Amino acid sequence: MIAVKLSGRIFDDPALVREYATILSSIEESLAIITGGGSTARRYIEAARSIGANNYFLDMIGIEASRLNAWLLVAALGPDVYPRPATSLEEVVTALGYKRRVVVGGLQPGQSTATVAALVAEAVGARMLINCANIDGVYDDDPSKNPNARKIPIVKASQLAAMLRSNALPGTYELADVWSLEVLRRSKIPMYIVDGRTPNHLLKVLREGANPGSLVLPE
Amino acid sequence: MIAVKLSGRIFDDPALVREYATILSSIEESLAIITGGGSTARRYIEAARSIGANNYFLDMIGIEASRLNAWLLVAALGPDVYPRPATSLEEVVTALGYKRRVVVGGLQPGQSTATVAALVAEAVGARMLINCANIDGVYDDDPSKNPNARKIPIVKASQLAAMLRSNALPGTYELADVWSLEVLRRSKIPMYIVDGRTPNHLLKVLREGANPGSLVLPE
Amino acid sequence: MIAVKLSGRIFDDPALVREYATILSSIEESLAIITGGGSTARRYIEAARSIGANNYFLDMIGIEASRLNAWLLVAALGPDVYPRPATSLEEVVTALGYKRRVVVGGLQPGQSTATVAALVAEAVGARMLINCANIDGVYDDDPSKNPNARKIPIVKASQLAAMLRSNALPGTYELADVWSLEVLRRSKIPMYIVDGRTPNHLLKVLREGANPGSLVLPE
Amino acid sequence: MIAVKLSGRIFDDPALVREYATILSSIEESLAIITGGGSTARRYIEAARSIGANNYFLDMIGIEASRLNAWLLVAALGPDVYPRPATSLEEVVTALGYKRRVVVGGLQPGQSTATVAALVAEAVGARMLINCANIDGVYDDDPSKNPNARKIPIVKASQLAAMLRSNALPGTYELADVWSLEVLRRSKIPMYIVDGRTPNHLLKVLREGANPGSLVLPE
Amino acid sequence: MIAVKLSGRIFDDPALVREYATILSSIEESLAIITGGGSTARRYIEAARSIGANNYFLDMIGIEASRLNAWLLVAALGPDVYPRPATSLEEVVTALGYKRRVVVGGLQPGQSTATVAALVAEAVGARMLINCANIDGVYDDDPSKNPNARKIPIVKASQLAAMLRSNALPGTYELADVWSLEVLRRSKIPMYIVDGRTPNHLLKVLREGANPGSLVLPE
Amino acid sequence: MIAVKLSGRIFDDPALVREYATILSSIEESLAIITGGGSTARRYIEAARSIGANNYFLDMIGIEASRLNAWLLVAALGPDVYPRPATSLEEVVTALGYKRRVVVGGLQPGQSTATVAALVAEAVGARMLINCANIDGVYDDDPSKNPNARKIPIVKASQLAAMLRSNALPGTYELADVWSLEVLRRSKIPMYIVDGRTPNHLLKVLREGANPGSLVLPE
Repeated sequence: MIAVKLSGRIFDDPALVREYATILSSIEESLAIITGGGSTARRYIEAARSIGANNYFLDMIGIEASRLNAWLLVAALGPDVYPRPATSLEEVVTALGYKRRVVVGGLQPGQSTATVAALVAEAVGARMLINCANIDGVYDDDPSKNPNARKIPIVKASQLAAMLRSNALPGTYELADVWSLEVLRRSKIPMYIVDGRTPNHLLKVLREGANPGSLVLPE
Repeated sequence: MIAVKLSGRIFDDPALVREYATILSSIEESLAIITGGGSTARRYIEAARSIGANNYFLDMIGIEASRLNAWLLVAALGPDVYPRPATSLEEVVTALGYKRRVVVGGLQPGQSTATVAALVAEAVGARMLINCANIDGVYDDDPSKNPNARKIPIVKASQLAAMLRSNALPGTYELADVWSLEVLRRSKIPMYIVDGRTPNHLLKVLREGANPGSLVLPE
Repeated sequence: MIAVKLSGRIFDDPALVREYATILSSIEESLAIITGGGSTARRYIEAARSIGANNYFLDMIGIEASRLNAWLLVAALGPDVYPRPATSLEEVVTALGYKRRVVVGGLQPGQSTATVAALVAEAVGARMLINCANIDGVYDDDPSKNPNARKIPIVKASQLAAMLRSNALPGTYELADVWSLEVLRRSKIPMYIVDGRTPNHLLKVLREGANPGSLVLPE
Repeated sequence: MIAVKLSGRIFDDPALVREYATILSSIEESLAIITGGGSTARRYIEAARSIGANNYFLDMIGIEASRLNAWLLVAALGPDVYPRPATSLEEVVTALGYKRRVVVGGLQPGQSTATVAALVAEAVGARMLINCANIDGVYDDDPSKNPNARKIPIVKASQLAAMLRSNALPGTYELADVWSLEVLRRSKIPMYIVDGRTPNHLLKVLREGANPGSLVLPE
Repeated sequence: MIAVKLSGRIFDDPALVREYATILSSIEESLAIITGGGSTARRYIEAARSIGANNYFLDMIGIEASRLNAWLLVAALGPDVYPRPATSLEEVVTALGYKRRVVVGGLQPGQSTATVAALVAEAVGARMLINCANIDGVYDDDPSKNPNARKIPIVKASQLAAMLRSNALPGTYELADVWSLEVLRRSKIPMYIVDGRTPNHLLKVLREGANPGSLVLPE
Repeated sequence: MIAVKLSGRIFDDPALVREYATILSSIEESLAIITGGGSTARRYIEAARSIGANNYFLDMIGIEASRLNAWLLVAALGPDVYPRPATSLEEVVTALGYKRRVVVGGLQPGQSTATVAALVAEAVGARMLINCANIDGVYDDDPSKNPNARKIPIVKASQLAAMLRSNALPGTYELADVWSLEVLRRSKIPMYIVDGRTPNHLLKVLREGANPGSLVLPE
């Protein structure tokens, strides 16, 4: 059992979704796939905020947008997938009792899809979580600002949590947050962070045991 | 009881959604509000089609997009609304048993939101359906092509159905389709078609008994 | 995957239901089976109308009656069937993920079970819809009135739709309606209409590739 | 809060259903109404038995038939009723939180609707259960066989249970069974048994405190 | 298909639960497993009664406690079990369509888990019900009071029902009640009563065809 | 609207539950009440851990235990409460549309009931969260170890989060965690922490505007 998180950004490009669908369909092992909300979520949340919606509704709207992305992936994955996005951890676990692939978006307000990914990985007993992110790995500084920022191949979850708390890495909220790291640690699930814009990095991890991005150890 | 259909296009403009929220909140009578899928639906359906999704999934994705619009309106309508989009006619009817306003998007594949609007209006016993459309009324020809096309103030549903069948009016699928007109006729529900880009037309119908667009008689 | 529509009339005769159960159980291919409401639906709808029920309730009662027929078939089909009637397209699709046979009655007000059959066929990706009807095929005139009416072996869906619109064929509403034909056309699903009172006609279509009634081409 | 059980036989006669709807609508107090399966249930159960269905399915089919009767009553009761039959005790209790009237048919295999009526009465805290039965009261012998059988105006539940166990009263299964009487006893709910073919007996009990049939004391 | 009832008492001892999990996991045949409420149910019901809760809530609380025990067993049974307690007969039957083991606690107020066990056994078509009870069989008198009470190896359900009615066997309510016996009789399901504190008695029945406790014949 | 969190420990003492029921029933304002899992949760989680259950199941079992406590409170609160524990934020929000009081236990694995309380408070728009805890306030050191530990009357959420991170306060996980504090901050909801063993402290906050424990400012 593998858990795969797809950044919401991937869904801005249908060709990329199709590539992922082809790759995911070629994997023999069972898969729980978590989709982010991406630009649709951001656009709708912004609209809702301009209208005065409270945080509960902002988050519900983001969840609904991530489900729209999940529907797109379900439609692309063909007959061997649970035929709708799951809407609770229990549904993910139940559906994987008879289907090899299940797709799920957000689940609850106050929770990033990074956290959903960790909770899903834990619930289904995944041996690893592959996070196809909007960045190609963990950096020691913000690479969009510091040209000397270096990618860190292997990092402990506890170290990454400390980096996140220090706010040294703006914009990495989507990548992982403190809570998701705690879940991965308590259930000893390693997380690979790979570049979501390069779908075959997913296969590199699975087929070659390579680490094309960063590996977060559950320590 | 009034049923109000909001064109999906309205949701491209948050300011317009806010105006509608203000107007709808000012109406004393109970309201069942149906939201279209708009540009989000079109974009996702197009993406799904390019990936090879079948019609069932294309329609489910359109429904999901219309629910995203419904969430936006729910968030804008504040405490006197059923706090999530209904997902079946039974839920609409049940929710209106204790809340004055309920919002609903699409319901089922193979069905336009125009038809959903007619079915909702029938189920809740609405005395009229106000269709805030992407056009300001019914025309005798396609106004985008024929500058001499004239708006028809009053038209029988049977006449409009004949016009739709003759394909003389391209692009009016969203406005009404044959099935939605049959539902309105069998339950004797008049439909006002008004310009969705001018929210106060809704009030003109309700408060002044005016007909700023076209009135479709259930005959 | 095959979709089979059973006319509600079949359920007036338990022996006929048993024959169908035996035949359907002998088919290897996966099956989505749609049951009509028949005389129970008519009797209850008539009662409800005499009491003053509105169209929403009349249709809900017809749906409930078709589910009673669906229960009867489920009970007759034994262990290889999803053990209750499905109540939504999503449930049909999900249940066929692990069971070879699923039974479903009506789904929503304003919809004939002919339309449900077409929508189900589309959703499950059926390669054909076999309509075990209350008549043995499509006629060029009403055979109950015109002794010279001739059965049409092959007809295009567009032609049949035109015939239905012209009202030349009273009582064929159950057989097919305009909307069901549109669904079949858009998803390219051929429909065989066979005599529901002769269960082995179903096998003739499936096993021999014969056309004992009429074939409606999705054109 | 009052619980009213309507014999399934009542639903064979739409005019009788209409009379009950009028009477029930005139009652100010909150109402939980339980409908039996009647002749539709018997006909379908017989058909299912002839097809070889097991007891689970026979009972599910009887439950579904009682829900069809419940739908008919819901349609007749108009806007002040929960707009669909409840399908669990929890739904009955929840629905009575905002609607004055709720209708429910059978709930579970292995359970008479007499027992459902007692459980519903207990769950909603009814001060009495009025059983509009297929007989006008409790008799000391089978009145269809013994012309000297006498109606018993007041009987203790424990006595009635003993009579039921002795099988002295064939055909009274629908009226009450041992389990339903235990529920009424443990929650101290008196049951009036009145003639279901005479709707105003219901009002006699409620408005005049009369006992036109038999009163079963919860002792 | 086998139905196994586990006395709630078993769940007071985690080591015993683990033993049962090991044994149940070793059985090839499909299993429907019913869990009692045990001491947790008793403690909460007593608390609720002291607070003045009515019988509906007392029973719902007992049901919820039996589900807590069911969760514990689900967690112990590993990947080949439906991953949550079922909450209705329909869910039990549906889940056994793709999982070999399903666990269920109580279902409805007014019903012992002994009755749930009989209904589940009937619904799933079990060839026997093995009742791992809080006693090692049926006795001809209360063994806790009469040292000469003798265990009865084989008893007819009708005899046991008569014994239960005579109140000669206090405290056996959990073992079986009149209603559960009627269900077993009507569906011809034999019930073995074995000592729940000795898990391998379950295997003795299944593997050796032995009768280490009492056998209740469905007559 | 007020949100009230009741420590699971409260449910060890039925008399205390009854006191809380009386107090909560006397409050005019709408209430969302969150119950912890307490000793039942701990006992079952320990049992499950000894059997080898994974974290997903440990948490689900804790959630189920908190729902058992929620049932107890629902039973004690009488007719003005939503008649069962809510099981999702959406159900909480929907139920408060027609009932003045709703009770909810845990919602999802990986989440403390402290976090549930914050999310519920946010979703329902509570003006404050009153946390009836297992301690009488926030201390600057562990009061069970350091007799000189001082209670802090007012503390900023950001300060409390820093204290929690520094692990200076063992055992306060139940009181609040970092995530719950973030939710309170983003939605500007103050939290009063009061001694759960002294129910009238709840009234002191509500009626007198007093601060008998600690006030956590959403800053």
